[in-house]
Amino acid sequence: MGDPAGIGPEIIAGAWEQLRAIPGYRCVVYGHPEVMRRAAELRTSNPAIANARINCVTCCGDDVLEVPPGAIDPRAGRAAYSAILQAIGDAQRGTVDAIVTAPIHKAALHRAGYHYPGHTEIFAERCGVENYAMMLYLGAGDNLASQHGLAVVHVTLHTAMKTIFEQITTESVLAKIHLADGFMRRIMGNSRRQTADRSRVGGEAVSAVSGAVAEGNSSAAVCRLPSAVSSAVLPRIGVCSLNPHAGEEGLFGDEEIQIIRPAIEQAIAEGLQACGPQPADTIMLDARDGKYDAIVAMFHDQGHIALKLLGMYRAVNITLGLPIIRTSVAHGTAFDKAWQGTADPGSLLEAVRVAVKLCG
Amino acid sequence: MGDPAGIGPEIIAGAWEQLRAIPGYRCVVYGHPEVMRRAAELRTSNPAIANARINCVTCCGDDVLEVPPGAIDPRAGRAAYSAILQAIGDAQRGTVDAIVTAPIHKAALHRAGYHYPGHTEIFAERCGVENYAMMLYLGAGDNLASQHGLAVVHVTLHTAMKTIFEQITTESVLAKIHLADGFMRRIMGNSRRQTADRSRVGGEAVSAVSGAVAEGNSSAAVCRLPSAVSSAVLPRIGVCSLNPHAGEEGLFGDEEIQIIRPAIEQAIAEGLQACGPQPADTIMLDARDGKYDAIVAMFHDQGHIALKLLGMYRAVNITLGLPIIRTSVAHGTAFDKAWQGTADPGSLLEAVRVAVKLCG
Repeated sequence: MGDPAGIGPEIIAGAWEQLRAIPGYRCVVYGHPEVMRRAAELRTSNPAIANARINCVTCCGDDVLEVPPGAIDPRAGRAAYSAILQAIGDAQRGTVDAIVTAPIHKAALHRAGYHYPGHTEIFAERCGVENYAMMLYLGAGDNLASQHGLAVVHVTLHTAMKTIFEQITTESVLAKIHLADGFMRRIMGNSRRQTADRSRVGGEAVSAVSGAVAEGNSSAAVCRLPSAVSSAVLPRIGVCSLNPHAGEEGLFGDEEIQIIRPAIEQAIAEGLQACGPQPADTIMLDARDGKYDAIVAMFHDQGHIALKLLGMYRAVNITLGLPIIRTSVAHGTAFDKAWQGTADPGSLLEAVRVAVKLCG
Repeated sequence: MGDPAGIGPEIIAGAWEQLRAIPGYRCVVYGHPEVMRRAAELRTSNPAIANARINCVTCCGDDVLEVPPGAIDPRAGRAAYSAILQAIGDAQRGTVDAIVTAPIHKAALHRAGYHYPGHTEIFAERCGVENYAMMLYLGAGDNLASQHGLAVVHVTLHTAMKTIFEQITTESVLAKIHLADGFMRRIMGNSRRQTADRSRVGGEAVSAVSGAVAEGNSSAAVCRLPSAVSSAVLPRIGVCSLNPHAGEEGLFGDEEIQIIRPAIEQAIAEGLQACGPQPADTIMLDARDGKYDAIVAMFHDQGHIALKLLGMYRAVNITLGLPIIRTSVAHGTAFDKAWQGTADPGSLLEAVRVAVKLCG
């Protein structure tokens, strides 16, 4: 349910009609049934929603019913936290197949005494996991030509810009290429009911690209992108440069030459379809136009500026590396527009769809 | 004309019908008439273009006619350079009111023996100017709600990411806010045939915002945005943060607190309408939705990713600080699609429109 003072309850209510129609799965809200009833009432323009029975697991006391809309309130933070914990427990016991989270408010969580930066750290702690990664995903749609949508993985994320340079290594870039590749294989494989055959397709594509590999210690992009045959199976991964214009052959920085290009060459040698380093401003246009299934960004803004412009309320946040499946809306509690019944449920709906795909 | 092997000639030919219809101005191509005749022929689907007389000043010899499309060729580089030089000379003599440049290719220029990074440096050298700045501008249109379009000024631009930190100072941020404000006043003032009255409108707006100024040494955004009255006159300037989430109150870097916010406060104290520091991913959504007339970005990718997604072939490049008016297309020679007659003339057309506005 997320923070009850935010837009979480109303986006769930707004999406409910579609959520209950997903074949083979049953959605259950971890939260408070009265909060959900009030949220459903907001959507009165659609009688199907207002009358639908929203399955609810009660995770908190009735004090949450006194929380004013849009307020930072410890009761709301506590309710959100309890719902998360109960859902995680049920996922660990196998009662639920996947968890989709609605937005929580960090300050409300802190006022309730829970000092986590966000959902992800709670999940990691309860699952006893130290290596995890956050990924953004935008499904195919109006502004995006790729038939499988677009995944964006960040090499660095919630960190000061001054500290990104020590975190961007050939190893970390390669790890994120693998992550993007693995995730998109699940999305593409499950959606097409077929299995990737890396060796065969990889072999084909290698010969197609060898001529495109620039010589020497160059910052030029190295690309292996698919023939029409292989594109059906292997994700196409674009890798951003760190510096403007991919460093202009070393003139504006040499991370492209020293760090990023070797990671891409390694990925290609392993049979992956990767391309880069490409300037982030042009790679995002290419991604929009369907050239890539996934983008590896070097820092937060490269990925987020593009993804929010392409589909702010459709983007999904996915935590990889957990023993349970967890997806999330990619937006916040939007306290300024909460409980007006106008919040867009697109991201939540998409987060549920991605969770279903990951369930296989 | 730009590099004759690129898309310059055909975008001029493609825009010619509209260019010759601009009231009060006459467009002249600095280049080669036979190149322009061939480019006009490419656009045969439109007889009005094919038959139009394209005014041309011959700036180079006939060897340029042998340059193959899409090739890096010293003859093309030399022709492009000669055209630029002759146009600058005529602008300095007052024969032309403004120069609009089509794309050139740096490598072709270098092969011809001219070692400049691009147009801008040639203009600066010939004009004897050391302090100049490049700005991007996107006119109002499909993806952009602001009625006056959107200017983007970068505090740092063509430089390695590792070096941006020393260049981002309160002084440099404030200077770019002033630049954005001054440019948009010319665009807004000229387009509305009215003059800005800073003192009166500034006074109104100050009282409207005082409550929004956060206390203490905060990284929270400080905003003065207009009432309906003042929005007609003063540009609304959004200032990006450097770090993700505007630094999360110092958790991810303190440049917002130490450097950027003081610059915005100073701008507001001077009567400008400024707001920030705001996370770059959300500020660009707000800009698209019409909240700002100009954005000050901290580095290249923040501005370029957004502007290219919002209107790659409509964006205009403007050099400020020259004694002559110069605008440019914001894209390159596009050798891969040159001389196919399909290149989009939108950016060129917009560059001419902006030049006309700047002429007043």
